[in-house]
Amino acid sequence: MRNVLILGGVAAGTKVAAKLKRMCFDADVKILTKDRDISYAGCGLPYYVGDVITDREKIIVNTPEKFAALTGAQVLTDREAVKLDPAAKTVTVKNLAEGTVEGYPYDACVIATGASSIVPPMKGVELEGVFPMRTPNDADGLKAYIKKNGAKTAVVAGGGFIGLEVAENLQEQGLRVTVMDMAPQVLPGFDPEMAAYGKRHLEKMGISVLTSTKMEEITGETKAEGVQTDKGLLAADVVVLSLGIRPNTAFLKDTGLEFAKNGAIFVDQQMRTALPDVYAAGDCAVVSNALTKETQWSPMGSAANMEGRVLAEVLAGKEQRFGGVLGTAVVKLPGMNAARTGLNEAAAKAVGYDVETVVVVNDDKAHYYPGADNFVTKLIADRKTKKLLGIQVFGPGAVDKMVDIAVTAITLGATVDQLENMDLAYAPPFSTAIHPFTGALNILRNKMEGVLDSMTPAEYLENRGRGYHIIDVSQVQALPEAQFVDVAKVNGPLEGVKQDEPILLICTKGKRSYLLQQRLKHFGYTNTKVLEGALWVNEPPAAEEERR
Amino acid sequence: MRNVLILGGVAAGTKVAAKLKRMCFDADVKILTKDRDISYAGCGLPYYVGDVITDREKIIVNTPEKFAALTGAQVLTDREAVKLDPAAKTVTVKNLAEGTVEGYPYDACVIATGASSIVPPMKGVELEGVFPMRTPNDADGLKAYIKKNGAKTAVVAGGGFIGLEVAENLQEQGLRVTVMDMAPQVLPGFDPEMAAYGKRHLEKMGISVLTSTKMEEITGETKAEGVQTDKGLLAADVVVLSLGIRPNTAFLKDTGLEFAKNGAIFVDQQMRTALPDVYAAGDCAVVSNALTKETQWSPMGSAANMEGRVLAEVLAGKEQRFGGVLGTAVVKLPGMNAARTGLNEAAAKAVGYDVETVVVVNDDKAHYYPGADNFVTKLIADRKTKKLLGIQVFGPGAVDKMVDIAVTAITLGATVDQLENMDLAYAPPFSTAIHPFTGALNILRNKMEGVLDSMTPAEYLENRGRGYHIIDVSQVQALPEAQFVDVAKVNGPLEGVKQDEPILLICTKGKRSYLLQQRLKHFGYTNTKVLEGALWVNEPPAAEEERR
Repeated sequence: MRNVLILGGVAAGTKVAAKLKRMCFDADVKILTKDRDISYAGCGLPYYVGDVITDREKIIVNTPEKFAALTGAQVLTDREAVKLDPAAKTVTVKNLAEGTVEGYPYDACVIATGASSIVPPMKGVELEGVFPMRTPNDADGLKAYIKKNGAKTAVVAGGGFIGLEVAENLQEQGLRVTVMDMAPQVLPGFDPEMAAYGKRHLEKMGISVLTSTKMEEITGETKAEGVQTDKGLLAADVVVLSLGIRPNTAFLKDTGLEFAKNGAIFVDQQMRTALPDVYAAGDCAVVSNALTKETQWSPMGSAANMEGRVLAEVLAGKEQRFGGVLGTAVVKLPGMNAARTGLNEAAAKAVGYDVETVVVVNDDKAHYYPGADNFVTKLIADRKTKKLLGIQVFGPGAVDKMVDIAVTAITLGATVDQLENMDLAYAPPFSTAIHPFTGALNILRNKMEGVLDSMTPAEYLENRGRGYHIIDVSQVQALPEAQFVDVAKVNGPLEGVKQDEPILLICTKGKRSYLLQQRLKHFGYTNTKVLEGALWVNEPPAAEEERR
Repeated sequence: MRNVLILGGVAAGTKVAAKLKRMCFDADVKILTKDRDISYAGCGLPYYVGDVITDREKIIVNTPEKFAALTGAQVLTDREAVKLDPAAKTVTVKNLAEGTVEGYPYDACVIATGASSIVPPMKGVELEGVFPMRTPNDADGLKAYIKKNGAKTAVVAGGGFIGLEVAENLQEQGLRVTVMDMAPQVLPGFDPEMAAYGKRHLEKMGISVLTSTKMEEITGETKAEGVQTDKGLLAADVVVLSLGIRPNTAFLKDTGLEFAKNGAIFVDQQMRTALPDVYAAGDCAVVSNALTKETQWSPMGSAANMEGRVLAEVLAGKEQRFGGVLGTAVVKLPGMNAARTGLNEAAAKAVGYDVETVVVVNDDKAHYYPGADNFVTKLIADRKTKKLLGIQVFGPGAVDKMVDIAVTAITLGATVDQLENMDLAYAPPFSTAIHPFTGALNILRNKMEGVLDSMTPAEYLENRGRGYHIIDVSQVQALPEAQFVDVAKVNGPLEGVKQDEPILLICTKGKRSYLLQQRLKHFGYTNTKVLEGALWVNEPPAAEEERR
């Protein structure tokens, strides 16, 4: 049987080893890993920092010994791969414990070396109190430092998912937290107006968020005291660097492997690299987008596991392919969750789709059930094929459910029409009689069919509401500067409002505006728009005089 | 514009009216309803009983006045339809408030009269303290009676979803609760072995459950004191009758409408009955199963809303069809939720599918995240087409998410292969790196491909484990009478166990048994079975001597 050498032992590496040994117990499977831990739960680290998980052992999924005994694979720790020779089919390895150099031959080599935190070459990054957030040791260091130094303020550099999770958990520990990002938004992958909604929520929850802000240096003598940015100095007893990750593939240059710009290795659907008998999976590999078929880097534990499983089957000789990722993500923020999958509006337009979108606010469970709240959902679809392309959801409830429905639909290439009357699960503690996914989808379909005429939050942010006569359709007047109309009392044209006047209808969540729009159409109004997401998602308009 | 008469004003009736008026404000839309409330949340009543919802107004979604003003439909309460004349196109109505009889002509008539609780003609049903559970008044009566009489014990007759919800809520109120059902199981629609798992859980949580038990009479002088069954007398200060519902269609006999055995009206995909210009929707109508296309009665608020929406569009002249239901349901039980959709094993076999099933126990979120627990999932698929047919899930977590993924997949006709590597949402507070749906699906695929050889809990219940040599593969020995094997130490044939011996592998959840099976196959064992669901789902086996 074959000699399979696996470089790296976290998610993808251990998955390949375990599954391959189950399928071919004869195979000689060796994991070589630089670290002492294997198979740790990187995604759990923010919660370990926040003492949501108190027991360090819990985030170590398996020890090398236990894993080896259970699977039959060998695990050699403290081994850093330094060279791969594809002609000789050997890997040169530094034994970090003994300081020696070892050579390992292979019949098949799996590169699963993962990725490491990007630490910028910047003044102050070497100070005490500055931590990346990638390994259990990073989390241990941060926890201990906060305790020892009684840290009160934290700056998290990087507004991605891990950064935001760390921010929530540091806040839970009582620190005043600022999240900063060079990008114009946090929550990468969300469209800007949705990310702006998320940002406003974070600020409401007491986390400062600075976007389009450049970190210039970390200040302090021996330990971090602040972060100097192009917008000013931020106090910071601790600094967490969550600036992204870089594939651990530097040792592979000049081997003939093909790399993406960030250093990740291109693989095909069978996880094969450009070199014979060399495979890659996990954070160090580039796969494809299941929708667009374009290459996509998806450094997620979930993708790593799927890739590892497929690769094990390929190595075992099974006909198997990995169809690609959708870029799904979910994150818990303070008091709210956020999730997305598929293409966002910008990406869908860039690929050339004829994009339609809608932003909907609706109940996440029966409105009378305790804990009921709202989802804010953006759906993205293609006008031509009517295919659902993506979803973005915020809310304190089960945003993951909304996204998982969309993942299933997009994976199967569903059109919005096919999804119209799905018999989704309903009982008051879980959902609404008209499922929130269906509710949002119905509104998208109304829009695509021309029944709903609306302005998106993105358009509204671009000031496209300028020149519209604003009508407040809320149950109780919410916009003192605007005309207030009770939809229940409209039984003819509105006094003093011409039928061809451009009218923007705004209410609390959007439903009453839609009701009024339908009625106004009946009375001859031809130029009304419902503001999608209404006051729930959008900032109230400035007084009309100012706007004009 | 047309004169549309809607008989009934809860879910389907109000949905038709509201949507139709939005589409055609000109239409003359009248709701006639027997009651004074419209649009109440029937599904919320158990939680109102349990004081989870304390405010009665909250379960009244809309008052007749508010609804009429908002939608433009007329609402006439206290009107009971007593006769429909399809030739004259009129409905005769009793005005219950004034004791008069009225006639209403229609261009289109929508029957949405719903269904009423079945109250058996049995001694004692008229006693004080006996309540059906269908309307807000039923719930009010029950609540007041418990308080006034300091009720300590309750019998809930009927182990369907509403019955179990009422049971949970009565228990929350401090009552000792017994659920009884004539059927051999509670949780209708679940396969027997899954329902048995649910029953054991209820009993663990302190609710007595009597199945195959016939109610003979309710005892007591003026008020309920007990329930006499064929198994003995049960103490009962209150009795809740949750014995099912019967469509309110008696007034329609001899009209030429076609009825199912239970009295529900057959409709086509456009919600048309056999009579011209007469439509039906909601609990009084029979629709179809989206998978089998056979007729199916689905008296659920969610289906009523979808049917109502479709019907409004049909009435508005839109090309629209209702594709049918899947029989989805979700229910919150004490400390555990249960949900299902699609065909159960029995139904799938009855329709003629070549059925494969699997029962899987896996983590519902990252095992290290607080509150993490397990899903017990049964998947049902067709061997020939590989289509997913159904799912049943138990667990304290998001069973609705598991089911909604399956609903989407089944609606779209997905095969298990197409669902293999979906990029479902993962972060530790929500899910596992290998999504529990994917995890269960992978095991089903392993079974369909012959990689996993297993015995189902249903087969095990039928005593098919008899004659097997049982090996306990748990991490820590759990079956004192069985041979214990640590899978990590198996590197050759097991001493004293022949390779052709029938072996049943049992562990805590199933994973270690599967691991050992793969290894034993490698060492020449040809007759091993993994017990699906393991000790999590199945009762421990009796000592082997007893079994033989």
